[in-house]
Amino acid sequence: MIHIGVIGAGECSAAGSAHAYEVGSLIAQHKAVLICGGLGGIMESAARGAQDAGGLTVGILPGFESDEANHYIDIPIVTGLSHARNILVVRSSTVLIAIEGGYGTLSEIAIALKLGKPVVGLNTWNVDPRVIQVKTAREAVEKALSLIQKKV
Amino acid sequence: MIHIGVIGAGECSAAGSAHAYEVGSLIAQHKAVLICGGLGGIMESAARGAQDAGGLTVGILPGFESDEANHYIDIPIVTGLSHARNILVVRSSTVLIAIEGGYGTLSEIAIALKLGKPVVGLNTWNVDPRVIQVKTAREAVEKALSLIQKKV
Amino acid sequence: MIHIGVIGAGECSAAGSAHAYEVGSLIAQHKAVLICGGLGGIMESAARGAQDAGGLTVGILPGFESDEANHYIDIPIVTGLSHARNILVVRSSTVLIAIEGGYGTLSEIAIALKLGKPVVGLNTWNVDPRVIQVKTAREAVEKALSLIQKKV
Amino acid sequence: MIHIGVIGAGECSAAGSAHAYEVGSLIAQHKAVLICGGLGGIMESAARGAQDAGGLTVGILPGFESDEANHYIDIPIVTGLSHARNILVVRSSTVLIAIEGGYGTLSEIAIALKLGKPVVGLNTWNVDPRVIQVKTAREAVEKALSLIQKKV
Repeated sequence: MIHIGVIGAGECSAAGSAHAYEVGSLIAQHKAVLICGGLGGIMESAARGAQDAGGLTVGILPGFESDEANHYIDIPIVTGLSHARNILVVRSSTVLIAIEGGYGTLSEIAIALKLGKPVVGLNTWNVDPRVIQVKTAREAVEKALSLIQKKV
Repeated sequence: MIHIGVIGAGECSAAGSAHAYEVGSLIAQHKAVLICGGLGGIMESAARGAQDAGGLTVGILPGFESDEANHYIDIPIVTGLSHARNILVVRSSTVLIAIEGGYGTLSEIAIALKLGKPVVGLNTWNVDPRVIQVKTAREAVEKALSLIQKKV
Repeated sequence: MIHIGVIGAGECSAAGSAHAYEVGSLIAQHKAVLICGGLGGIMESAARGAQDAGGLTVGILPGFESDEANHYIDIPIVTGLSHARNILVVRSSTVLIAIEGGYGTLSEIAIALKLGKPVVGLNTWNVDPRVIQVKTAREAVEKALSLIQKKV
Repeated sequence: MIHIGVIGAGECSAAGSAHAYEVGSLIAQHKAVLICGGLGGIMESAARGAQDAGGLTVGILPGFESDEANHYIDIPIVTGLSHARNILVVRSSTVLIAIEGGYGTLSEIAIALKLGKPVVGLNTWNVDPRVIQVKTAREAVEKALSLIQKKV
């Protein structure tokens, strides 16, 4: 099974939310599992998009309780590790799609680059040419899937 | 959704393996998600039992690669945290069933007791009266489910 | 430099506190560094004993702020990992002395046994013959030091 | 006691190494404790500088053994957490000085910004105006100390 991580902040713009919803929906349509941090903002919109399209969603949570997860998470992973859970989001994803995002997202992009894991960016941090910048949700998911093909 | 953790060692007796398989199977028949450490022995038998019964299995892995998971894991969570992942298995489960087990399992039982999370034991460490000892797989799953009811 | 971990609960008996103070003091007199979880109870008494004897104390804290440490910690390590920090206490110690203790201490003893790290016990969990039970603080520190010698 | 973190890669330029050595030396001269990741490159040069000036050095290690530390670490903290230890380096430091650095350093800068912890940069990632860029080791340490003053 393919696991695609969607990373982004707990607060986001309306455009970011729409992008995340569509990315989540496309991930589900491609029968991939959505991995995310399980909270609000980008994470919630992506999970909602994935669930609405019949997909499976995993939320790797920073806190101590599963009910910290947004309402669209099927599998809450309760870590109690605070920001250290960001690294688990990266490691558990075959490829990552970053949408907008603050410093937490930047830390996830950095760890992904460190681990040599492909990252597609949609209006996100432009810190390194290895983050492949795209303009639409469809491009993001297609690019992500093509990067997995290459890896195989 | 109910998440039941099955904990036990990467190597186990034939009896332990049979118990784990049946526990996994019953978890799936009750539409609960199986949480485990994702490796061999008890974890593998439980996951196989759950998958054979049409259930969903999550493996919270200690290492760096998803292919470290046994063949019956649907959702591998790659932590890179070594034994610290034990705590995530406990936190992500609503109730735990311990089958046999070595020192790693003992650490999980201890953390569960620390967190006030119910533990059912099947031929496992008998370190505390709060670990509810049972004799059969069926008893283990029924007891686990009844403990969740009480909590709700 | 030798690093000796002292593990025990955040609440303890007067006898436990006295034992911990003397253990800390002896650790410092042997020019070893005291490693502990940095909070109250056994951890605080051991750190106070070590500092009073001119030793160096390290507290590996579960929370988010260094001022969570008791007043006798020279080097606070702030993990933000909650109970997962227990494993770091074990890994960072060459040998462990367990004094009394609850479920958290039991989890540390279990991880130490898993990692093959020697544990000396003073009125603590008696779960395994590999935990060497002693009666006095002096015996505890002498036994701990002798176990390090053997290892080298 | 003041704890200053020095972050940078395990491989560095000769200029970076010289900067790190001088930063470490100045940290020790100011009676502050050096916190770092404990490995080679920038971490090793900073620790060597601090020890040569009579300071105390802490290395928060990613792996499983204390002998993974460079030769200039007084207090090795053995985490077994791989890159998740980066977050502990950030949390355990009152202020951070980033020297050069790759993706791992970028992840540490991001987490520091996320936590609102001040970062001084010397030829490092210029991703955010909140990272205060300086040109010399002396400036770096003076700026770091002044940021702590402000905080108090």
